[in-house]
Amino acid sequence: MFSPPLSCQLLKSLAPEENTKCQQGLYFQDGKRRVDYVLTYHIKKTSSSRRHTSRLRDNAFTRTLRRGREPPPPAPKDDAEVGSPHHSMDHHDDDKCLRREEFESNLMEMGLELERDEETKTPGVGFVKIHAPWSILCREAEFMKLKMPTKKVYEVKHSSGVMEKINAFISKLTDPLHPNLEENRTQKVKHLSYPFSREKQHLFDLSDKDSFFDSKTRSSLVFEVLKRTKCTKAKFSMGSKTVLEGIIQHFIFTRCSGITSLLGSGVYLAAYPLHDVSIHHYTAVELFLWILKLLYEEWASYSVFYKYQPIGLIRKYFGEKIGLYFAWLGVYTQMLIPASLVGVIVFLYGCVTVDDDIPSMEICDQRKNITMCPLCDRVCSYWNLSTACGTARASHLFDNPATVFFSIFMALWAAFFMEHWKRRQMRLNYEWDLTGFEDEEDHPRAEYEFRVMQKSLKKDHKSQKKEKLTCRDRFPAYMTNLIMMLLMIGVTFAIVFGVILYRISTKAALAMSSNPMTRSNVRLTVKTTAAIINLVTDLVLLIFDVYFFHICVMVVSSEVPKTDKSFEERLIFKTFILKFVNAFTPIIYIAFFRGRLGGRPGSYLYVFESYRMEECAHGGCLMELCIQLSITMLGKQLIQNNLFEIGVPKLKKLIRYIKSKRGSFQEEEYEKKLQRYETDHFLEPFAGLTPEYMEMIIQFGFVTLFVASFPLAPLFALLNNIIEIRLDAKKFVAELRRPDAARGKDIGIWYNILRGVAKVAVIVNAFVISFTSDFIPRLVYQYMYSPDGSMHSFVNHTLSYFNVSHFQNGTAPLEPFHLGFHVDICRYKDYREPPWSLTPYEISKEFWAVLAARLAFVVVFQNVVMLMSDVVDWIIPDIPKDISLQIYKEKILMMDLFMKEEQGKTRIEDSCKETSTLTRSRSIQSSVSSCRSIIVMTKHFE
Amino acid sequence: MFSPPLSCQLLKSLAPEENTKCQQGLYFQDGKRRVDYVLTYHIKKTSSSRRHTSRLRDNAFTRTLRRGREPPPPAPKDDAEVGSPHHSMDHHDDDKCLRREEFESNLMEMGLELERDEETKTPGVGFVKIHAPWSILCREAEFMKLKMPTKKVYEVKHSSGVMEKINAFISKLTDPLHPNLEENRTQKVKHLSYPFSREKQHLFDLSDKDSFFDSKTRSSLVFEVLKRTKCTKAKFSMGSKTVLEGIIQHFIFTRCSGITSLLGSGVYLAAYPLHDVSIHHYTAVELFLWILKLLYEEWASYSVFYKYQPIGLIRKYFGEKIGLYFAWLGVYTQMLIPASLVGVIVFLYGCVTVDDDIPSMEICDQRKNITMCPLCDRVCSYWNLSTACGTARASHLFDNPATVFFSIFMALWAAFFMEHWKRRQMRLNYEWDLTGFEDEEDHPRAEYEFRVMQKSLKKDHKSQKKEKLTCRDRFPAYMTNLIMMLLMIGVTFAIVFGVILYRISTKAALAMSSNPMTRSNVRLTVKTTAAIINLVTDLVLLIFDVYFFHICVMVVSSEVPKTDKSFEERLIFKTFILKFVNAFTPIIYIAFFRGRLGGRPGSYLYVFESYRMEECAHGGCLMELCIQLSITMLGKQLIQNNLFEIGVPKLKKLIRYIKSKRGSFQEEEYEKKLQRYETDHFLEPFAGLTPEYMEMIIQFGFVTLFVASFPLAPLFALLNNIIEIRLDAKKFVAELRRPDAARGKDIGIWYNILRGVAKVAVIVNAFVISFTSDFIPRLVYQYMYSPDGSMHSFVNHTLSYFNVSHFQNGTAPLEPFHLGFHVDICRYKDYREPPWSLTPYEISKEFWAVLAARLAFVVVFQNVVMLMSDVVDWIIPDIPKDISLQIYKEKILMMDLFMKEEQGKTRIEDSCKETSTLTRSRSIQSSVSSCRSIIVMTKHFE
Repeated sequence: MFSPPLSCQLLKSLAPEENTKCQQGLYFQDGKRRVDYVLTYHIKKTSSSRRHTSRLRDNAFTRTLRRGREPPPPAPKDDAEVGSPHHSMDHHDDDKCLRREEFESNLMEMGLELERDEETKTPGVGFVKIHAPWSILCREAEFMKLKMPTKKVYEVKHSSGVMEKINAFISKLTDPLHPNLEENRTQKVKHLSYPFSREKQHLFDLSDKDSFFDSKTRSSLVFEVLKRTKCTKAKFSMGSKTVLEGIIQHFIFTRCSGITSLLGSGVYLAAYPLHDVSIHHYTAVELFLWILKLLYEEWASYSVFYKYQPIGLIRKYFGEKIGLYFAWLGVYTQMLIPASLVGVIVFLYGCVTVDDDIPSMEICDQRKNITMCPLCDRVCSYWNLSTACGTARASHLFDNPATVFFSIFMALWAAFFMEHWKRRQMRLNYEWDLTGFEDEEDHPRAEYEFRVMQKSLKKDHKSQKKEKLTCRDRFPAYMTNLIMMLLMIGVTFAIVFGVILYRISTKAALAMSSNPMTRSNVRLTVKTTAAIINLVTDLVLLIFDVYFFHICVMVVSSEVPKTDKSFEERLIFKTFILKFVNAFTPIIYIAFFRGRLGGRPGSYLYVFESYRMEECAHGGCLMELCIQLSITMLGKQLIQNNLFEIGVPKLKKLIRYIKSKRGSFQEEEYEKKLQRYETDHFLEPFAGLTPEYMEMIIQFGFVTLFVASFPLAPLFALLNNIIEIRLDAKKFVAELRRPDAARGKDIGIWYNILRGVAKVAVIVNAFVISFTSDFIPRLVYQYMYSPDGSMHSFVNHTLSYFNVSHFQNGTAPLEPFHLGFHVDICRYKDYREPPWSLTPYEISKEFWAVLAARLAFVVVFQNVVMLMSDVVDWIIPDIPKDISLQIYKEKILMMDLFMKEEQGKTRIEDSCKETSTLTRSRSIQSSVSSCRSIIVMTKHFE
Repeated sequence: MFSPPLSCQLLKSLAPEENTKCQQGLYFQDGKRRVDYVLTYHIKKTSSSRRHTSRLRDNAFTRTLRRGREPPPPAPKDDAEVGSPHHSMDHHDDDKCLRREEFESNLMEMGLELERDEETKTPGVGFVKIHAPWSILCREAEFMKLKMPTKKVYEVKHSSGVMEKINAFISKLTDPLHPNLEENRTQKVKHLSYPFSREKQHLFDLSDKDSFFDSKTRSSLVFEVLKRTKCTKAKFSMGSKTVLEGIIQHFIFTRCSGITSLLGSGVYLAAYPLHDVSIHHYTAVELFLWILKLLYEEWASYSVFYKYQPIGLIRKYFGEKIGLYFAWLGVYTQMLIPASLVGVIVFLYGCVTVDDDIPSMEICDQRKNITMCPLCDRVCSYWNLSTACGTARASHLFDNPATVFFSIFMALWAAFFMEHWKRRQMRLNYEWDLTGFEDEEDHPRAEYEFRVMQKSLKKDHKSQKKEKLTCRDRFPAYMTNLIMMLLMIGVTFAIVFGVILYRISTKAALAMSSNPMTRSNVRLTVKTTAAIINLVTDLVLLIFDVYFFHICVMVVSSEVPKTDKSFEERLIFKTFILKFVNAFTPIIYIAFFRGRLGGRPGSYLYVFESYRMEECAHGGCLMELCIQLSITMLGKQLIQNNLFEIGVPKLKKLIRYIKSKRGSFQEEEYEKKLQRYETDHFLEPFAGLTPEYMEMIIQFGFVTLFVASFPLAPLFALLNNIIEIRLDAKKFVAELRRPDAARGKDIGIWYNILRGVAKVAVIVNAFVISFTSDFIPRLVYQYMYSPDGSMHSFVNHTLSYFNVSHFQNGTAPLEPFHLGFHVDICRYKDYREPPWSLTPYEISKEFWAVLAARLAFVVVFQNVVMLMSDVVDWIIPDIPKDISLQIYKEKILMMDLFMKEEQGKTRIEDSCKETSTLTRSRSIQSSVSSCRSIIVMTKHFE
């Protein structure tokens, strides 16, 4: 990759008439200094006088641009109160202005160079462009211990022999899948990296100082300075009624650190690094050299959906954290391919074997003609088992031995996925020179500092010693939040169960009606209404989903977490719980509760006296679970992705288009003339990766949690993700402001959540297989009860007998001759004693045997699968072997380099000493300086 | 702590006549340079001529001690073959000598200073004492990025207000528990730490260069150099028959790195740092200032058994890894206190409630008079249930609801223990300045390099390019080892089941005998013989235990792991599996298999046609499990600790004493005169922490795995550990050579093993409670079958009926009138249908119900306890809050320091520039030098 300034010169030489465009907002007015960061603030349009003064100040600014030509501003503290009396009667905005000025002068003292621009085409917004000169970049890089490539190069040896050939073949095979980039080719040599230090400058290749730090690094270094720089001088005089408040507010402004609190208090509107040049501005030739253009072509485009993502490039442009997100998404999507393949095979296996399935054959067999008991009291009548033929056959698609295999497979798949990701992460860490980097403890948040101050002020007016927020201080917030969370979970439950209740009551009401036509249509009516209600519920839950995040932000804020990291983790955790409950409550109800507590014919169980619990169709509840799952997955994807993520922006654009028609295309033209830092200001700010991760984790839940009942889930997820990646990419490239490039070694709390979901998935799958599906009863029948070891008459075995004379008062069917003949004994699906036993309708021995088998299966399945996952986890090393080898090799090389340097130094110094002792009469200085030059020479020689 | 050299001077001033003693082997002959490391080698006593030459060489040595006075030896590579022709006809020892010389000259080139001593009082052993001068220490510390305390001091604020008072109170309360050390008092100030760098020397307090690096650090720095220094020159000419072998061996000597391979090939006998002065040499006054003395008094003494260990001191003397082991042992022992307390309470609860236990009351009730079926065919007769009264009552002690609570408690205890340890580890990391330190990838082991070389030579004689060992190369070794491991596990199983079979067959043989006296004594005889056999088994297994380690070393060596770390991990893992199987097979047999597959009266199950499976006594197998557990725990502790760890050394001393009597006390006298490096040579070498950890982990297994059946286990473990700590301490202080101080952040693989054991413990406890104890049947009876919800007639419910007329041929008892009356119906403990049911003696519905309940309990218990453990894991932060705060604070302070420095530097440089531009006519040098002095001044001022 060429660096922007170089490209700029190149462009100049290519097309000299366009050299102004090249600097369209990406450079200072002098066209040389790059804009590394932009701060925006609000200026009052109306008060032209203010604008004038600010312009005046601006001039003063430009004069003070080069620090060192003028003496630095006087020490800030002493004249804080005294030095600004002419501002004390000014209004709110002026106070902000004052704080801005102070902050900016502090920035300049830190060595940054600023340029102010208030006469832009976007009225009401002022811009401060920040440039970091070389020395500052060096200093900050040293403080951050940024690892940079040194001049020392070594050859990366790839595995030899057969492996090499195989690797070469594979890479040839996958070549079209790789993005079309230069740097993506496997490199033969690698630069050793070493934490940047000005004392070891000779190690690094500083021939092109402009490109040594790329734009992402530059902006993150500037951001470090912005975070650290404090505004100690400003005094807030307005709005503070009491002394206490005044002190508190003074405290906030004096203590709270850096840009975050200034953004929080509205002194600045926004702070962002600049995107590379806008893709809309230039023709193809010019764009050739910009990363953004490459990203746009090789990443944020649907036409490359089958390709790997250019992760290195993403990281180079957006920083490590966002790079990790997309790498993770890529690994996840990639891992979904085998999962969905196996899932489809399992499904096909079900399709193929559906005709050989003895139980469903028996159900469909018209000759067997088993008379079933009515499914509800009074209104329902006897029915023939063969009418459930369709459901039974469909159930077999999802309920066959292959699903058991598949859920074991998916549990191991999840373990593999985790391991694969860990290795990938390690590899990326190595490639991105993050080995040895430690995540830093965040600065305390402004809100936290504020609360602490408040507390210590209340306690003791004089001693302003720093306190901590203890549990007792946070207790009220914790309690309210706990209640709040429970309330929201309660609301979710209420919605789900409200719908169920509605369904039950509609059914009951319809059943009660005397109209026989209505009654005969009961099933159909209920089904259609239920489907509509389901959809409505899903929509309501979806809307809930959208607002959960905002509620959670509120909730977590009230807890006043200390650091941003803690804030984020709490927020993620709370949002995750709510979303999880929201997404899985209806499914869990269907899988484990629906039709479980129905009672038996003649004494069906009722809730609220008249509403009967819901029944499942004869084929088991698995079928309904499948339908619900596919609706949720498809619905969610369709609505969320297409409607929200694609539709809403399109709609916005449409509205803007209609508006612009009124403004007769002026806006668009106008936009084209905007400078880069202005267009960026109009983009959406980057709101963090939490929503992106959250969506994927919930999807991961769908893929793993109920995979035993719905083997097509991975396929659906895969299809979704292929779109999702490019959608997200487009968003990041074109619709968001460039995010601050944050360093990060891992995906943090998300990994733990993934692990948790994978763990829960094992248990849920164990229960689905043993309790929701008919797998265990079949096994038990085959090995305990079947006379010939086959599945013949399994259906008969699962059905208990009921003597119709035992119907209690008013529970007998109204139309006993519905089937056309008199019924003495009917059958129902349960394990109960027959009417002729000593204890009729009691739970039978078979029930307990099957239950024991089911539970035994859960115990065995859970422990075996967990053990296997642990073994997978343990066998696969977290660090890929070649990486650990290379890290070791680099260490050795670095050590050798230093040792050589040491030896060279001492040798030269020794010889210097000798010469100096020999020629003590001569000027010592000269010999020393000659020595020094020799040392420098040898340094460069190494 | 004062440093040794300082103390030395102090002692000199105190007692000038003893100043020679002060240097007893701890310093070079000049009495100034400290011995940091010692290498020993073998010299042939007989060949006096060789000795002479070596002495000559020695003189040459002393001359070359101060590197730099003479030019360094000529470049080694070229004259490797040419330069040493006069040695080529020498014998084996001379070759070693040559390699020693070359290695030592390389060491000198690295900057170390050596002193050779062959005329010691220990004939046959030569010593090379190594001293590292200041510059070398600095260089190595910089390479190792050793964090050292800087001059910058800040005040550590302790929590304020109520918490402070509570803390003060607690620390006052626990004051007598702390070791009697100066440094143990809570410090008010802390030095900031920063990785040592010669370029930042001004940060550190270098006023006393001798004490800046303590003896442990010095020796570990020297060890680093020793590891890195290679011997490239030596050529092995003897014993290499073929060219191939010659090349291979040449390769080993040229490639293999450092001291480890030299030790491995016997060039050196041993390499160790020196202990502080021996405690036997000095009077109390002199010892006052040495760490070792403090350790001896405040740590390695039984009289301080109730005190905390001086962990800081241990780390200071033995290094971080050993410090961590003792810290871990301390935390474990400390955590055992609450566990054993609760355990005792649970046991006492059992004792108190034994009289209120209805089932055992019913068993003991003579009036109920339940006739039980014979426990074996023919020879056994009917018996009265009331004779099992004692066992039933004893069982209640361990089988009551409190044990369920206790096993949940212990699972959580284990989780707490892990978390507590993690936090403690983090705290120690912080206190020991290890934050940011990363465990280094080890050097490849010499054996590995050798194998790789062998392989590449076999493959291709010419291209000596480096290969890796692939799986295919290791496959044969893996396979043999797998078989080996399985074989050893098989042997363990064979022993355990052999004993069981012996027991069964004895019983059968005795039963067969016609003598009625013998027959009546069957039970007693079998019991006593079984007890003896048990003890013998335990002893055999114990002996196995001791040899497992050696076998594992062999096994793992054959796998040729690449690095020492990998070697260690494989060794630990394999040893752990074998030891675990060895320790827990008999117990698992008793808990889950014994008496399970007995069959029913009239059709008892037989193995090998005539041997019946063992039965448990009526009270359930829990009682026998308890007995086995207490025997194992006490026996192991008694035998291992007292016999092996105390007894064997005592015995050795006794033997030596008897020997020395023959030598008329000469040896002891002689020993007193030995120099420190000589006495250390006679101590046992340090063999790693693996055996120590292993012992504790197996104990942890006993404490957690079967805690449901034996609540006193933690108490036994606690008592053992209190002795164990002091025993280990004595061993480290007095009986072992001082180990190389290794840095380490954590206890490595042991933590994972602990986690694994804790996980398995949850499952095992769930099974013990639900299957071994009577807890679940009781619950089921109480809530499903009991007419009044009480436990009355529970015993009756668990007993099935048997009609004696159904005895099959030859299975009826020989003495039917043993009880004095005719028996029609007898009872036996099982859930089976009565004789009068349709399916007599079939498994009954109750059986399935109880089984389902048992399995349900397992599922619920396992998941609830695991969830609770995870919650504990998640709620308790891994890094203690105050530590994370302090780390953050230190970072800020360090940053401030650097920023101030930066500003100072630039300001001065600016002013320098100004002055230099002003006075350009004057000599530039002077102004530059003055600037430099100002910079230095400001640096010191910061």
